[in-house]
Amino acid sequence: MNDGIAIREATPADLPLVVRFVRELAEYERLAHEVKAGEAEFGAALFGPAPRVFALVLEAGGQPAGVAIWFYNFSTFLGRHGIYVEDVYVAPEYRGRGLGRKVFQYLAAKAVDEGCGRLEWWVLDWNQPALDFYRSIGAEPMTEWTVQRVTGDALRRLAATD
Amino acid sequence: MNDGIAIREATPADLPLVVRFVRELAEYERLAHEVKAGEAEFGAALFGPAPRVFALVLEAGGQPAGVAIWFYNFSTFLGRHGIYVEDVYVAPEYRGRGLGRKVFQYLAAKAVDEGCGRLEWWVLDWNQPALDFYRSIGAEPMTEWTVQRVTGDALRRLAATD
Repeated sequence: MNDGIAIREATPADLPLVVRFVRELAEYERLAHEVKAGEAEFGAALFGPAPRVFALVLEAGGQPAGVAIWFYNFSTFLGRHGIYVEDVYVAPEYRGRGLGRKVFQYLAAKAVDEGCGRLEWWVLDWNQPALDFYRSIGAEPMTEWTVQRVTGDALRRLAATD
Repeated sequence: MNDGIAIREATPADLPLVVRFVRELAEYERLAHEVKAGEAEFGAALFGPAPRVFALVLEAGGQPAGVAIWFYNFSTFLGRHGIYVEDVYVAPEYRGRGLGRKVFQYLAAKAVDEGCGRLEWWVLDWNQPALDFYRSIGAEPMTEWTVQRVTGDALRRLAATD
């Protein structure tokens, strides 16, 4: 299954690719209207001084086939960082070759190597193929927890209150 | 309500306090068995070179009253970092004075100042007082999403597969 697939760290030359794949992912997640980022934003975040977010390029047969974005989170109870997978995208024509699995294996190995306690991510509840896949790699759903978000005008209002 | 309450960045001298409050928080969340971290772990993570996680000390009347732990996450669609609140703990005798609200205001202001797009955190679904409070500060529950986690033996197994 894994023949000809590879994962490598993104370089600045990959920025157009990263932006294209992020837009394709947003379309798949029905969230295209939320994409605000272009090469300038990704360039600053991924390749500025002391970056706090990282990108992987997925390849199949030497061709770019997808992208993964991750950063370090933190477990207060463990007192250790974890690895948080923000996004994994595999282009439709490259699905079914094990690229997604290879990303999670790659980041699990990095987590173990670096003494991180956990590998975590979120999933949209209606994405059953993804949920099935995550069970197959040993992930547990943290169903007791719900993500809370303040953004946009609400964020500015909260910032301005006293 | 806010008289005499303050927030400041933690220093290495606060490590015993941070550890004590994290243990108290774990007891409240019925997760005390999960706490593995002591001063060495927190010292390395909070005060080592180029830290990726940060602590705030909450004070009331000049006394330490709680702690908050946060780090930078990232929104792929915005192409910008956000602020993720890992934990907020207010000691029982200091609750009801607005310290929790002040933490979220403080971090919302930091997010706005630094061009971060979002302030996010998780909450335990049974913690109704917290849920009510989060609605009051403008947070939306991201109910379409579930957190997935690989940890412990499952993480090592995933790392070792090929």
